[in-house]
Amino acid sequence: MKSLNIGMVGYGFMGRAHSNAYRKVNQFFTVGTRPVLKAVCGRNAAELEKFAGNWGWESTETDWRKLVDRKDIDTIDISSPNNTHIEIALAAAAKGKMVLCEKPLAMNAKEAKKMTNAVEKAKVPNMVWFNYRRVPAIALARQMIDEGRVGRVFHYRATYLQDWTISADVPLGGRALWRLEKEVAGAGVSGDLSTHNIDTAIWLNGSLHSVCGMTEIFITERPVQDQPGKTKKVEIDDACTFLARFANGSNGTFEATRYARGRKNKNSFEINGEKGSIYFDLEDMHQLQYFSHDDPVHLQGWRTILVTAFEHPYMKKWWVPGCVIGYEHTFINALADFLTGLEKGEPARPTFRDALETQLVCDAVLESARTAKWVTVPAK
Amino acid sequence: MKSLNIGMVGYGFMGRAHSNAYRKVNQFFTVGTRPVLKAVCGRNAAELEKFAGNWGWESTETDWRKLVDRKDIDTIDISSPNNTHIEIALAAAAKGKMVLCEKPLAMNAKEAKKMTNAVEKAKVPNMVWFNYRRVPAIALARQMIDEGRVGRVFHYRATYLQDWTISADVPLGGRALWRLEKEVAGAGVSGDLSTHNIDTAIWLNGSLHSVCGMTEIFITERPVQDQPGKTKKVEIDDACTFLARFANGSNGTFEATRYARGRKNKNSFEINGEKGSIYFDLEDMHQLQYFSHDDPVHLQGWRTILVTAFEHPYMKKWWVPGCVIGYEHTFINALADFLTGLEKGEPARPTFRDALETQLVCDAVLESARTAKWVTVPAK
Amino acid sequence: MKSLNIGMVGYGFMGRAHSNAYRKVNQFFTVGTRPVLKAVCGRNAAELEKFAGNWGWESTETDWRKLVDRKDIDTIDISSPNNTHIEIALAAAAKGKMVLCEKPLAMNAKEAKKMTNAVEKAKVPNMVWFNYRRVPAIALARQMIDEGRVGRVFHYRATYLQDWTISADVPLGGRALWRLEKEVAGAGVSGDLSTHNIDTAIWLNGSLHSVCGMTEIFITERPVQDQPGKTKKVEIDDACTFLARFANGSNGTFEATRYARGRKNKNSFEINGEKGSIYFDLEDMHQLQYFSHDDPVHLQGWRTILVTAFEHPYMKKWWVPGCVIGYEHTFINALADFLTGLEKGEPARPTFRDALETQLVCDAVLESARTAKWVTVPAK
Amino acid sequence: MKSLNIGMVGYGFMGRAHSNAYRKVNQFFTVGTRPVLKAVCGRNAAELEKFAGNWGWESTETDWRKLVDRKDIDTIDISSPNNTHIEIALAAAAKGKMVLCEKPLAMNAKEAKKMTNAVEKAKVPNMVWFNYRRVPAIALARQMIDEGRVGRVFHYRATYLQDWTISADVPLGGRALWRLEKEVAGAGVSGDLSTHNIDTAIWLNGSLHSVCGMTEIFITERPVQDQPGKTKKVEIDDACTFLARFANGSNGTFEATRYARGRKNKNSFEINGEKGSIYFDLEDMHQLQYFSHDDPVHLQGWRTILVTAFEHPYMKKWWVPGCVIGYEHTFINALADFLTGLEKGEPARPTFRDALETQLVCDAVLESARTAKWVTVPAK
Repeated sequence: MKSLNIGMVGYGFMGRAHSNAYRKVNQFFTVGTRPVLKAVCGRNAAELEKFAGNWGWESTETDWRKLVDRKDIDTIDISSPNNTHIEIALAAAAKGKMVLCEKPLAMNAKEAKKMTNAVEKAKVPNMVWFNYRRVPAIALARQMIDEGRVGRVFHYRATYLQDWTISADVPLGGRALWRLEKEVAGAGVSGDLSTHNIDTAIWLNGSLHSVCGMTEIFITERPVQDQPGKTKKVEIDDACTFLARFANGSNGTFEATRYARGRKNKNSFEINGEKGSIYFDLEDMHQLQYFSHDDPVHLQGWRTILVTAFEHPYMKKWWVPGCVIGYEHTFINALADFLTGLEKGEPARPTFRDALETQLVCDAVLESARTAKWVTVPAK
Repeated sequence: MKSLNIGMVGYGFMGRAHSNAYRKVNQFFTVGTRPVLKAVCGRNAAELEKFAGNWGWESTETDWRKLVDRKDIDTIDISSPNNTHIEIALAAAAKGKMVLCEKPLAMNAKEAKKMTNAVEKAKVPNMVWFNYRRVPAIALARQMIDEGRVGRVFHYRATYLQDWTISADVPLGGRALWRLEKEVAGAGVSGDLSTHNIDTAIWLNGSLHSVCGMTEIFITERPVQDQPGKTKKVEIDDACTFLARFANGSNGTFEATRYARGRKNKNSFEINGEKGSIYFDLEDMHQLQYFSHDDPVHLQGWRTILVTAFEHPYMKKWWVPGCVIGYEHTFINALADFLTGLEKGEPARPTFRDALETQLVCDAVLESARTAKWVTVPAK
Repeated sequence: MKSLNIGMVGYGFMGRAHSNAYRKVNQFFTVGTRPVLKAVCGRNAAELEKFAGNWGWESTETDWRKLVDRKDIDTIDISSPNNTHIEIALAAAAKGKMVLCEKPLAMNAKEAKKMTNAVEKAKVPNMVWFNYRRVPAIALARQMIDEGRVGRVFHYRATYLQDWTISADVPLGGRALWRLEKEVAGAGVSGDLSTHNIDTAIWLNGSLHSVCGMTEIFITERPVQDQPGKTKKVEIDDACTFLARFANGSNGTFEATRYARGRKNKNSFEINGEKGSIYFDLEDMHQLQYFSHDDPVHLQGWRTILVTAFEHPYMKKWWVPGCVIGYEHTFINALADFLTGLEKGEPARPTFRDALETQLVCDAVLESARTAKWVTVPAK
Repeated sequence: MKSLNIGMVGYGFMGRAHSNAYRKVNQFFTVGTRPVLKAVCGRNAAELEKFAGNWGWESTETDWRKLVDRKDIDTIDISSPNNTHIEIALAAAAKGKMVLCEKPLAMNAKEAKKMTNAVEKAKVPNMVWFNYRRVPAIALARQMIDEGRVGRVFHYRATYLQDWTISADVPLGGRALWRLEKEVAGAGVSGDLSTHNIDTAIWLNGSLHSVCGMTEIFITERPVQDQPGKTKKVEIDDACTFLARFANGSNGTFEATRYARGRKNKNSFEINGEKGSIYFDLEDMHQLQYFSHDDPVHLQGWRTILVTAFEHPYMKKWWVPGCVIGYEHTFINALADFLTGLEKGEPARPTFRDALETQLVCDAVLESARTAKWVTVPAK
């Protein structure tokens, strides 16, 4: 079996999810390549050592440039905050290394374009960790659309609803809460939650032609973490909602927020077509709902497909029918696809270019929110 | 249009439901007969007058024997407590009147047999108000079984769960609470809730061959209504559960209770067959759940049929797809079937004989609970 | 008991729903007034006679002006298509008659304003049949909001999804399908489905400050009913979606369509507040979903309230806990409120003025869709 | 960190689940002991090597006696078919090794008693892998019961429904299908599925006093795997249903089958108490349903707790709220509890003695089914 030496930047929540994927993929998937946890990189040496020890990373680096320079590293995995993506990706591509990047790809489309051009020029395999494409139920949705079970699409409806920032006591900043800081995250829910919705939408329903959105900041001032008494203005969007027209003529609505009390991870979509409709909600990620207009009328209804059969995407690799997999498995499935792509010489989607399109939509939404006008999404 | 003169005994909850049915049936169903609210009978003249005035009953009687004797009455509707059914039914049959009787048909199978023989000897149309057969979703279940969508049956699972007697403060007796008194109700949940389950089961899955049950009294002493300080021993079953073997070889479980906290009217059944399964719950009476093994494996799932389409039983008579009907409509649907049966010269089901079978099962269950043994259900 | 003589214009689907309400309200509600089905008006004398006979209307008229002129009529109920509302309402008000009007109040806000001024000038009681305010679950939602269980609102999300016009074979015109004709309906789903969403939103969450919408016509040409071979251009909106900012600072999304395969009557709303959230879907109209942030964290969850308890709005008047009511009861509940209002000298909501606000929002949405800009809703 | 050297017998489905647990537990749980995958044992050397290589087992054995004899093994994990459990367990205990055993503990209570006596005499830590106790939602149910949220229990209702043996083509025998062979499995669904239900029931609701059951064989003859043309009589129970009286006075129903079309892994229970009720279904294992009678009446309803919060059992160790875990994690959670128990010197439940009780219930059910009588469960 071939080895693939991984150098990962970042050891937070995503670093943990990726490490787990590297360690598990070969036990469940028959792929000819074994990822090696070669080196992990972070700024706090003490915490980093602990992390590396826990997960079995062979070595550590505190400067990502050194990591990128190392000869024994084949692939750079960027799991650090958004504002660090571009520099690392450009440097990695320049060194001819493959690049895996956490979503969103960049702070904005301009950055994303540079990064895309860089990996394409360097001809290095690249993928963005939009892990939800690898939820078996979402992969099944795509398969069903390809099978013609939806037909001409009229409506696409997406939400990503959470509620963890409702309290005014939630602080800005620090390792865990960089998502609330504009200079680190780039944007708020639009760059975080909406990009998941957009990536899925493009995958399932094709390109968005134009968008019209609004953003909102519900709590405008927050305490700063670890700095008692200090507060800071909130500059990222707490909520981001937009209307869309897809290239295929269908209408779309998208809503992302961290202020939907009771919704913990409601990443949902519904697609309504002439022949059938499909609904998904990440809070019940083992299910897919489907309405078929092909059934006899008196038997038509929304059916809940328990996506755990051997016949469902990815599930043959895991346990037995009726045994669900969870959040972490989406990363393992994605990694398996990446490794399989390497062997076949095919890109694993979404590539940087795919993710650039998501970023272009995201920028268009924010421009639309600023200008209170419809904005046409530029070509990627 | 022909008239059918109704004389109804009882003016409680069921008297209300029946009155409503008599008044509405012709506006929604095209039947050649119009029920006329001729006379209602009850013991409390003042309350009875009020009731009659409210519902448009043309006259009142305080002695049911006079009602039965009246020449201008075609049909006697027995809506009074269980212990009064037999006498009224026998008298009505003797006078050659049609008889509609609230469920359960009788206090026990012995009474039920006498009543059945009486109406059959008199050759008068007769029906027992097991209204849930006329829930459109249950009628659809029956249709689907007839269409062969379930196939060989392995399991039948029924519950009727409520929670309104959990408090030890709920008194025995009075007009509303006669269901808790043995001498009036005959039995507890077995004679009330279980009989609904059994009637539906026989209709959908055929006869029960043998049963093995248990009953329980959770609260053994209760206050007596309107008699402060007085208490009385509880003699009816609070809960009744039984196993069954059906004549078709399938296994059954039945559970009825008024002690299932949070379940208000959970009259549910599930039937598991080789080709498909069906699930119903009265708390969501506008839905029927269906699993088809005929679907491609990756698309199989439990579907929720919203039973409001024109193609569904009874629904063409009501509003438009997506507009639900409720509890009271089951009585109107039943009445429409009875009237249609009259015109066609066909019995409306369940007849007294059908309901006798339910009573035989019920008696077998109670005998089984007493003797702690399996009991074979006698032929009806 | 006082009589209230009703003269109703229109005998279609809504005429049926209203007739049923007039006949039933006194049997279930203790109100001091009895509606009398005095006269019904329509153009086709033969069909009208049949309708009147079926429902017990005492007389018929084929010219609504004669109906309005009749001395024995106290209240005019406008149940005819949208383009007839204004003339009838103005005439009825001029004669000092009370006016009940089906929704939407008018073809547009300009008409609605005239009508509102007319009834207010005439000082006649008036109400628009936005019947869904009387769904017990929606009334409960309002009560819960008033009790402070939602708190500061962040998001309001409404849909009204149906699928009955997806087939290109559905014709335009005729008695049943006037909703697809611009000159009769005024607008498409915006004037039909969206107005329900807007009325409910205003009731639950207050006024809308500004809106930004889009409309779509998916099938642009349709056959004309009863005119074989003839087709006609579709001019009403098949779908209408809009973003909104409410006066209270919350964000809203609204989507109405008749092209959502599998959704039959999905009139839904979700309101997310600091303390709690509420969700409703008309397809399960007996339920209300509620998430409370006041529960201990480990016990928090969305609860499904079965809205059939005596403690729930309207339900004490109907059957017993666990017994659901349906679509038709919303009209009866509304009528009871109107009659109670008469007795108390209080307006029953929504009045014409309330409905004018809905019409202003609707017009703003359509203007926004035409101009591709945000539009501020004018004051009513 | 201390090492714990594991020797595992069996490398099938359960061997895989256990291996995964040994490899992952330390990355997610802070325990002072690290399991070492020392040796795995099986009869087919070639397949065993492949398995060992895939999971990182350091060595292999093809004779379990050699494994038990090895000095470098601290713990024997019995993951082989039921008929092998007793011999291995007795030998391991005799050597003073800790014993982890897959469920069911034994072929029958007689065996289970010997095994229990052996480990207790040897004073070795022991646990049976009833993994569902470690579903966070089930652990939460237990916590809620301990908190007094259910109160006096009236009813307990358990099912374990699957559908994978409905086809008459499913063969007997072979590595995967030993569960259908009496001499290997001991019993059918009663020993497999029912034991899960019973273990959970005892944990949540205490001991069962007496039972009355029935079993059924729906397909009496099956092909033998890998022996074309040969068939064999089916001797294990296809379905097992029983009534129960618990020591606490509550009534129970239990149903297990592999013939419930559409039910894939419906391991469900409902517990109805005076103060509240709880419902769980393994097919939605990330949820727990709860009805509280303490809420104001108009707000009461079944709530769905998304069991992914930091405040829920085990979940702080995994990802973040809204991110579900799956089937495999129940084994990891169980292992973490076992390791924690070692450190604290406390038994991890269920011990062999706990599992003996389950076996006694199971035997009583089968005796009851044979004799068609109620059977009192003997003391453990």
